[in-house]
Amino acid sequence: MKDKTFLMIPGPTPVPESVMLDIAKHPIGHRSSEFSSILEEVYTNLKYVFQTQNDVFLYTSSGTGAMCAALENLINPGDKVLSLVLGNFGNRWAKIAESRGAIVEKIEVNAGEVINPEILKKRLEEDINKEIKIVTLTHSETSTGAANDIQTLCSLIRAHGALSVVDGVTSVCAMPCKPDEWGIDVLISGSQKGFMIPPGLAFLTANERAWKVYEQCKNPSFYFDWASYRKSTRSNSTPFTPAVNLIVGLNTALKMIKAEGIENVNMRHKKHCLALRAALRALNLELLVSEDKNASYAITSILPPEGISVPAIRKTLKEDYDIVVANGQNQLKDKIFRIGTLGFVSDRDLISCIGALESTLYKLGHKFALGNGLKTLIEELNK
Amino acid sequence: MKDKTFLMIPGPTPVPESVMLDIAKHPIGHRSSEFSSILEEVYTNLKYVFQTQNDVFLYTSSGTGAMCAALENLINPGDKVLSLVLGNFGNRWAKIAESRGAIVEKIEVNAGEVINPEILKKRLEEDINKEIKIVTLTHSETSTGAANDIQTLCSLIRAHGALSVVDGVTSVCAMPCKPDEWGIDVLISGSQKGFMIPPGLAFLTANERAWKVYEQCKNPSFYFDWASYRKSTRSNSTPFTPAVNLIVGLNTALKMIKAEGIENVNMRHKKHCLALRAALRALNLELLVSEDKNASYAITSILPPEGISVPAIRKTLKEDYDIVVANGQNQLKDKIFRIGTLGFVSDRDLISCIGALESTLYKLGHKFALGNGLKTLIEELNK
Repeated sequence: MKDKTFLMIPGPTPVPESVMLDIAKHPIGHRSSEFSSILEEVYTNLKYVFQTQNDVFLYTSSGTGAMCAALENLINPGDKVLSLVLGNFGNRWAKIAESRGAIVEKIEVNAGEVINPEILKKRLEEDINKEIKIVTLTHSETSTGAANDIQTLCSLIRAHGALSVVDGVTSVCAMPCKPDEWGIDVLISGSQKGFMIPPGLAFLTANERAWKVYEQCKNPSFYFDWASYRKSTRSNSTPFTPAVNLIVGLNTALKMIKAEGIENVNMRHKKHCLALRAALRALNLELLVSEDKNASYAITSILPPEGISVPAIRKTLKEDYDIVVANGQNQLKDKIFRIGTLGFVSDRDLISCIGALESTLYKLGHKFALGNGLKTLIEELNK
Repeated sequence: MKDKTFLMIPGPTPVPESVMLDIAKHPIGHRSSEFSSILEEVYTNLKYVFQTQNDVFLYTSSGTGAMCAALENLINPGDKVLSLVLGNFGNRWAKIAESRGAIVEKIEVNAGEVINPEILKKRLEEDINKEIKIVTLTHSETSTGAANDIQTLCSLIRAHGALSVVDGVTSVCAMPCKPDEWGIDVLISGSQKGFMIPPGLAFLTANERAWKVYEQCKNPSFYFDWASYRKSTRSNSTPFTPAVNLIVGLNTALKMIKAEGIENVNMRHKKHCLALRAALRALNLELLVSEDKNASYAITSILPPEGISVPAIRKTLKEDYDIVVANGQNQLKDKIFRIGTLGFVSDRDLISCIGALESTLYKLGHKFALGNGLKTLIEELNK
């Protein structure tokens, strides 16, 4: 009997049943007053979740689409972009910038590390002619589970005068992320993450500073064009036929987030992640991001114990317990496995996960005190 | 009791219950072997439906995204593009080309008319220096319901040497459309149309001639990049997290199309459209596209009878019979209404629609022989 797959990957994430049932309703016309009312609620609640007074645009695309929506509305060929890279997704910003003809410089750290604000500060101070126009950042790097101190980094970028463009794909909902308060100029995210709905929608919010740069962009993207989206968003519409069913589901999911309260959602993710990290350490497992202060609350990367392979762990978890955890990406493949605690995740899910992981490691011959992970998890969850 | 809305608009179109239930399943990991197997079936069946030996790319976007995916991988600034415009969607090609810095020339016809091949032939013959690099065309113009003779137009373009880029958003499935046989170089379509699934996915296929032009494109789109999609498609994957749930639904829908047979699907649309047109005429209604040979089999535009307004007809159909038909767009708003016969539409649906329209027109005081529409429809459907 195998029909209970549970995803503990950093996306797609689990979806509440009420949301799934909404998505299964027959599509309605995207130009109907009924759909316009749904969009009105969605746009209002997106501002609440993004904690911004600015518009939040809703794209029918992958999260990468929203990354393109950011840079393709800002960059002219020859512009200088500084990309702060923690891993794959930090590198994706750099690639998109290059695809628009930007001159890209990178500050890159090892997998699991974060950007040292002092190093950014020094680099920005050296830029006396203010050549750097845009700095791209990753809040929570999905490929490693490291999280930057976005607040500090964005304040340095603001002091320099460049535009900060932040990937919040796995951070929005999972971690405090306050664009207006922290001075994030452009922030993007995706639906299959903290938003508790399937993939297919992505989000972008930009402030007035970013709009000034947009106005200088000679060839903004047609599909992702900010001006088209602003006009449509303000009239509770969309420029093109959107993913109607996913938006109906999003409306329900956003109401659930609002009912819980965004601060409580953030705190739940923090509690889950820190309890998971403590439990993993109690199983004698090493974490890629060693310090809790640098940890993303969305995703935790774990090194396999000596003599036990990542594929063996993932296979046993999948075959015996129907739990899916992620492998590492690219050069981290088979070097780490990643457990997501993102979105619609409960204490019970964490208990299942640690219990199943203990059983998996026990079967595979890892040395640890059986029960110790669960003991630690329960203690931490009830602190 | 009002919970039976039936869409007879040109998209979103009705979705089979089995497809809706598949979409309502919990998302699975987009890098799992299970999802890869689904993609393998989907990619194979997309080639069948598109009647091509070339790859068909699957984008998470609106249909407009696929239009961008076409031109943003082909155009360099300064390139000359000839746009054949029947209405809004033909104009959209022109706008996208302009957004990439192309010099756009248009051949434009009145609403409801189609491109005269002789006029295109003449224009292409005048282009002795072969300056025109790309010709954009619309197969079925959704805003008017007119359909071009794509086969003839594309053969003229091939003779000239330019690339033909065809919008098949509402034609693929509804009408014969054979890119390999007819020499269409790039063809795009969207999910919420003949494909019988909700909006959120779009498709593109390109031949070797188009790939040669792609190779000269200096800054291809990052999100829609053909090379990334070809690589992923050939390994039964996607470059970015796709709309997993919609793809699971698409797999079921494509199997239904294959079981019916694409020629039979085309013939069903033709039969429905021509029967509808005959029935509408039997109700003393005037059609925007007067000749059957120029009619799209996906969508029919109707002029309201004198003294009865389009909003009154749409309102009565919606409020009394829960049937949604489309208004005209832009300058055609309130001048026409449009009935879709696209995708998952049966003889019974046509009978409901004509019956409800007769009742609507009867209530609104239109003069016609009550029952005459249904009589004609039944005769035509059973020819």
